[in-house]
Amino acid sequence: MARNMHPEETERRILDSARRLFAEKGYEKTSIQDILNDLNLSKGGLYHHFKSKEAILDQLNDDEWAVASHLLDELIGRKDMNALEKLRTLLVSAVDAPDHLDLVRSQLELLKDPAFFTANMRFWSTKLPEYFLSIIEMGVQDGSIPTTYPKEAAQLLALLGNYWLMPCFYPADRDELEHRIRCLTTMLNAIGVPAFDEALISQAVKGLTALMPEEVAKSV
Amino acid sequence: MARNMHPEETERRILDSARRLFAEKGYEKTSIQDILNDLNLSKGGLYHHFKSKEAILDQLNDDEWAVASHLLDELIGRKDMNALEKLRTLLVSAVDAPDHLDLVRSQLELLKDPAFFTANMRFWSTKLPEYFLSIIEMGVQDGSIPTTYPKEAAQLLALLGNYWLMPCFYPADRDELEHRIRCLTTMLNAIGVPAFDEALISQAVKGLTALMPEEVAKSV
Repeated sequence: MARNMHPEETERRILDSARRLFAEKGYEKTSIQDILNDLNLSKGGLYHHFKSKEAILDQLNDDEWAVASHLLDELIGRKDMNALEKLRTLLVSAVDAPDHLDLVRSQLELLKDPAFFTANMRFWSTKLPEYFLSIIEMGVQDGSIPTTYPKEAAQLLALLGNYWLMPCFYPADRDELEHRIRCLTTMLNAIGVPAFDEALISQAVKGLTALMPEEVAKSV
Repeated sequence: MARNMHPEETERRILDSARRLFAEKGYEKTSIQDILNDLNLSKGGLYHHFKSKEAILDQLNDDEWAVASHLLDELIGRKDMNALEKLRTLLVSAVDAPDHLDLVRSQLELLKDPAFFTANMRFWSTKLPEYFLSIIEMGVQDGSIPTTYPKEAAQLLALLGNYWLMPCFYPADRDELEHRIRCLTTMLNAIGVPAFDEALISQAVKGLTALMPEEVAKSV
């Protein structure tokens, strides 16, 4: 009974458990029953909060996006960094955050589903570029990102970072991934967006290697 | 009766009619009945050759790919061009061939369908890069494409050329398209793949403008 008096806490426990189980077993192989067993919760107790497993995943992704948006808002207001440093901080948050990487990894199988894949591609081509664009435009203003292609750079960071760099879509071993990231670095430098320095390249290689399908990662 | 004695000719007539009607009305809005009316053909006569409208589209796309593969084979054997000129010839064939552009335009609506979109993205990430890679590797050999990123360049030409440059996925007016193509040109030059010269840039702008959703193209 006590639990029902704190519905937000129950919701938080369901999300935490789902996040952990999705990361361990993958989204597809995790059942609602697994989450119920993990929490010692009744079916009704869960369905009161989420009408399906998909709704739980949507909430986890929405929460992630809320964190990313909050980080962006916070960065935009900071006076101690130029825009290029802010852009790098955003990119580091994408490749060096264990929780974020776990959530992405748990959805790798799901990305083979056409409807889910198409929805992701749409997000990466519409909403995500706007997220990068606000910082890049600040960089044009403060001179730290001297590009005449702010919109294009924002679109390419979102598309190439989430699709082309991903070993699940474009298979690669660790060295091939590093080569690919250096290719992107050279291209972005050429259009005046020096987002990737050696530190970020290392972090990106490490983060993306963690997103390899297991059989490949093991052989590396 | 005479018609049935030439099944290949009937098939050719069906494909020609479908190609023209798809281009005029779009794939979605063209019915099997439209094709039958156009050819004065019976339903049985058509279903003998194609079991569905989708099968006709698949055949048109397969035929296109056969033409492209043939062009590649032919180009590879030519002694009067270096590999860079061969690559440009391939790219011109994609942006300056009325039949090809008509076929692409007829499928713009269909590309919103998740299954069709996902199948196309898979083709662009797997088979199409191999098509470009054979020529780029020749260019590394003959010195006309001095890149250390042949595989990456092949993947990016296929992905960015078919997805990022397409105004149906990334809306743009004519000037924005030209700016985007110049951005791609700068990036490819930076990795040693000077595929786009001024002539190709103009042809690409013209070809891709023809693939704009109608309401935008009219206002240009």
